[in-house]
Amino acid sequence: MTRKKSTDYSDITPDALRKLIRKGSITSPTSGMCNGYAQANLVVLPKDKAFDFLLFAMRNPKACPLLEVTDPGSRELTYMAKNADIATDIPKYRVYENGELTGEYTDVSMLWRDDLVSFIIGCSFSFEWELINADIPVRHIEENCNVPMYNTNIECERAGAFHGNMVVSMRPIPYDLVSKAVLVTGAMPRVHGAPIHIGSPKAIGIRSIDAPDYGDPVTIKKNEVPVFWPCGVTPQAVVMASKPEFCITHSPGHMFVTDIKNVNLKY
Amino acid sequence: MTRKKSTDYSDITPDALRKLIRKGSITSPTSGMCNGYAQANLVVLPKDKAFDFLLFAMRNPKACPLLEVTDPGSRELTYMAKNADIATDIPKYRVYENGELTGEYTDVSMLWRDDLVSFIIGCSFSFEWELINADIPVRHIEENCNVPMYNTNIECERAGAFHGNMVVSMRPIPYDLVSKAVLVTGAMPRVHGAPIHIGSPKAIGIRSIDAPDYGDPVTIKKNEVPVFWPCGVTPQAVVMASKPEFCITHSPGHMFVTDIKNVNLKY
Repeated sequence: MTRKKSTDYSDITPDALRKLIRKGSITSPTSGMCNGYAQANLVVLPKDKAFDFLLFAMRNPKACPLLEVTDPGSRELTYMAKNADIATDIPKYRVYENGELTGEYTDVSMLWRDDLVSFIIGCSFSFEWELINADIPVRHIEENCNVPMYNTNIECERAGAFHGNMVVSMRPIPYDLVSKAVLVTGAMPRVHGAPIHIGSPKAIGIRSIDAPDYGDPVTIKKNEVPVFWPCGVTPQAVVMASKPEFCITHSPGHMFVTDIKNVNLKY
Repeated sequence: MTRKKSTDYSDITPDALRKLIRKGSITSPTSGMCNGYAQANLVVLPKDKAFDFLLFAMRNPKACPLLEVTDPGSRELTYMAKNADIATDIPKYRVYENGELTGEYTDVSMLWRDDLVSFIIGCSFSFEWELINADIPVRHIEENCNVPMYNTNIECERAGAFHGNMVVSMRPIPYDLVSKAVLVTGAMPRVHGAPIHIGSPKAIGIRSIDAPDYGDPVTIKKNEVPVFWPCGVTPQAVVMASKPEFCITHSPGHMFVTDIKNVNLKY
């Protein structure tokens, strides 16, 4: 998820933002838009893969926290947004066929099929909002780059065709704020929840903290410890590795903006 | 769920208990057995209904908190119990065909099919254990009867063939302990979580608090308020109403005893 400053749309409502995206007026990353509202990852799969993916998410709720799952074929959401159209309301989509990226689109309505099930998945933007509110520094935001993400040796629980290791994101936290960071994010299990690991990158199979597998490296200060959270890249990586015949996702950083405030994901 | 005193098996391990059940040595309700360990509801459905039921549970996590879902055909569990056999380790099962109860069995291995998916669902026994630990009275245990349960006007979120209203259980709580009861159970979302309603039975469509739709009436004292929790009878009622071609459940009160301590369902 790229996180570029985008102050223009910080104060409009999610509904208004989605209308602008639907018209094609916004095709950029959504970071900083609709301040306070949860943004979400999207994975769209044919019905014949949907049971296994739902099972995968159920068994790996930290890496793959489901916020909503649609009925097969439906482009509407019921809980996370009203009057939304999944096929048009994200600024940029990626389409994969048999695991290969075959195109990027600003609208996938012409590719829609009656057997598609959409999975709306929680995103760490929501807990970063809470961390900042609680005066806990979020380094990659301070340094205006992407969060560093790493492949690990932590195996996800398999479900049918879907299996693989967890991808984690890392935020350096001052020692005296680690417990607070655990409590703040632990209260938000619908957006990844508490850290999966605190302290030793090696213990979870990370060779070099300075060379993330995705995103950008960030500064770790002397009084800070690297803290690792389950990352929403995990389900995408797991789905791609299984090479489904057809799959649509959001394009990195181009998220679905919901009607739900981050603070309401705590309850 | 009947809750008769059964002190004989209160201190043995879940694994030892399940072996006795498997041999046919125990066919009685499980209340009071393996103190401190979570007991669970069972719903078994053919794969062709499993996606919709998983979706129903995902959309109604308070009434239908899933603890584990098996791979199709598998009689083994991975997370909630080791060396368990779903088809033999519950003291009494019910079998339904097209929504009609067609038999009770102490072993369903001869009825097992390769397309069956088992859903292990959290049970209020776990949070009652925590309430009692926290010195909050649980009336139906004091009065040695079933918890009172009621049909309500609270609609569950529909998923495919599965829809219906929520069934709730009621426990009278002294006014000065209501907040504590909310906090204790709210910390356990995997076993129904916080109350769904506090105070007015009428507001949720209950006509007479003295005439529960299932279970037994209990005394509500002068300084107490009726507190309502989502009930595990909801998914069973919803499944039966959809008249699946084939379905196995536990028999009321005859639960699956897991290897997981109640206290660990908080984390």
